[in-house]
Amino acid sequence: MPQRHAARRERAQQKIADLGADAALITSLPNVRYLTGMVSSNAALLLPAAGPGVLATDSRYAEAAARDCPDLELIVERVIDTALASLAAARGLGTVAFEAQVMTVERHAEVAALDGGPVLVPSGRMIEELRMVKDSGEIALLARACAITGEAFEAVLPQVTAGRTEREFAVLLERAMIDLGAEALAFDTIVASGPNGAIPHHVPGDRAFTAGDLITVDCGARYGGYHADMTRTVALGEPAAWQREIYEIVATAQRAGVAAATAGTDVRTVDAAARDLIADAGYGGDFGHGLGHGVGLEVHEAPTIGYGRTGTLGDRVPVTVEPGIYLPGRGGVRIEDTLVVRGSARAGTDAEAAGSHQMLTTTTRDLLVL
Amino acid sequence: MPQRHAARRERAQQKIADLGADAALITSLPNVRYLTGMVSSNAALLLPAAGPGVLATDSRYAEAAARDCPDLELIVERVIDTALASLAAARGLGTVAFEAQVMTVERHAEVAALDGGPVLVPSGRMIEELRMVKDSGEIALLARACAITGEAFEAVLPQVTAGRTEREFAVLLERAMIDLGAEALAFDTIVASGPNGAIPHHVPGDRAFTAGDLITVDCGARYGGYHADMTRTVALGEPAAWQREIYEIVATAQRAGVAAATAGTDVRTVDAAARDLIADAGYGGDFGHGLGHGVGLEVHEAPTIGYGRTGTLGDRVPVTVEPGIYLPGRGGVRIEDTLVVRGSARAGTDAEAAGSHQMLTTTTRDLLVL
Repeated sequence: MPQRHAARRERAQQKIADLGADAALITSLPNVRYLTGMVSSNAALLLPAAGPGVLATDSRYAEAAARDCPDLELIVERVIDTALASLAAARGLGTVAFEAQVMTVERHAEVAALDGGPVLVPSGRMIEELRMVKDSGEIALLARACAITGEAFEAVLPQVTAGRTEREFAVLLERAMIDLGAEALAFDTIVASGPNGAIPHHVPGDRAFTAGDLITVDCGARYGGYHADMTRTVALGEPAAWQREIYEIVATAQRAGVAAATAGTDVRTVDAAARDLIADAGYGGDFGHGLGHGVGLEVHEAPTIGYGRTGTLGDRVPVTVEPGIYLPGRGGVRIEDTLVVRGSARAGTDAEAAGSHQMLTTTTRDLLVL
Repeated sequence: MPQRHAARRERAQQKIADLGADAALITSLPNVRYLTGMVSSNAALLLPAAGPGVLATDSRYAEAAARDCPDLELIVERVIDTALASLAAARGLGTVAFEAQVMTVERHAEVAALDGGPVLVPSGRMIEELRMVKDSGEIALLARACAITGEAFEAVLPQVTAGRTEREFAVLLERAMIDLGAEALAFDTIVASGPNGAIPHHVPGDRAFTAGDLITVDCGARYGGYHADMTRTVALGEPAAWQREIYEIVATAQRAGVAAATAGTDVRTVDAAARDLIADAGYGGDFGHGLGHGVGLEVHEAPTIGYGRTGTLGDRVPVTVEPGIYLPGRGGVRIEDTLVVRGSARAGTDAEAAGSHQMLTTTTRDLLVL
């Protein structure tokens, strides 16, 4: 693993050099983890354009840092970013790129006010861009997180019964994920039944499942730091015509979105592939969120697949595809998979197009009537 | 509950007026939750110095916001902070206080660049300061979170057996907390056995418990949004003399810290009450972190009880007291309670001093030999 992180740092150093900075001060915790392997709630990395990096953390993590990051210089301080900025200046690294998307205004002011401190320039999302494309080890961890998620969901499906509350079901599902090897939940589980299904990010509560409900379950396991994300909507008892209708529209749109998620495709095109189908069916106003997002060391990371977004999907980029229809007061449907975009942006043949993604969540997308 | 949140907003409005600002843009999610009741991963509040507030969220949370915050004006936007800043300007709120400790440099630049946008001034930690002092409803939620934590810990103690791994034990404990009613974990559980005990924030791994281990367990349940935090260190098999020695020093220091945590006491004095005992025993260099922190809607919040910190404890402020000794390569001890500081800063009599705090975590602090 240290070799893998060293290779990532080398790629980052190329970007730092391209930016014309002497070093980068990495304060995003997922970015620090990506570049060093360090798992901590308080760590930062000073990475010069050339030469070894310096990891800073506080005393709570000092021994773990020494153990896990033997190839990095380590400093143990209470206020790590100002300490690293001072060190940069002391070593003649006069221009330091910082993560303006992460550093707070307050902390930036403190670093900028250092006597003899470095000149700070925004780095952009250089590490987030590196993180978009996953290596085989990362994809394996993500695949395991997704497999645990699907297995757990299928194991607790028989517990979708009339009278069971959203919260009870969420607990059963979360427990199943932990029992199956999740190190933690990727996020708080969403269980939205009946009218609550109209709330895309409903917090599971005391509402009991009732015959005639559509029930949307959005869940994920975390494994080795990597986050799964899957949503399924099931019916308790025979669904009404309107429920079947919106389910079929969302399922069709989801397939279209997945099919469009190929290397070389613009994220707006992927979003539109699903969104246009929903809009054409008359529900455009009932699908308010983006189509999907990258997943990895964060449950939401680059790229964002949405109508106002820019960027192109590439090989080995894991994303979610998750269209929905939400009808206030009535209910809703969302279907979401995590998949890895595969293949070259210049894939031309049908065979290549067919192999253009690898599904990581595989639970059936047919409407399950329980 | 809406009344409670409205009362909190009134107190915040007084602070906004005192600051001389026309409004505050609240973007800290715990602060938004505190002032509105809104539970969301994307919400912000524009609170004028006088008059009703405006809550902004995205479409995923729109229906929940309308349901949970009926007394607030609601706008649904994708980029909520710039939307609220524009709205402020349109309504003649020319000076808007923002949370520099939360807003990123990037987002600040976007808001500041709005054509005809408001003048932005840092608000300081005005809402965090309000949040330090808890009302009876908050203390009840915190007490429940702590009771679940203690009950779960005691329930799984018999599972501390030779051969069980740190990770397995963490899962058992986390499961017990969920089964006992936790809505989630307050944080990832720490289980640090044998030499790993020297790492204050060790991530539980595959190391199996072994006779002769000290095992440090740091855990907490979340209930109603409130976070418990408790640490106990137990011995597997008869402890060696050095293990008993550091345990007794930490236990004595912890009692001293708890006793010192009274209304009107400076946080440095509380920290010193525990730290000096550890230093006098010759282990000052082996206790690198602060003595404690506030708990509430965040697991770490104001006040910080540490050697370089300022501030005074007050009535109804919940804090942790958690000294430790960490011996690299050998092991460690930490003992932590969550308690509520009670009483007036001017309490003079012994009776009042005796009632100066309310322990929320009550599991024995005697060394358990399992």
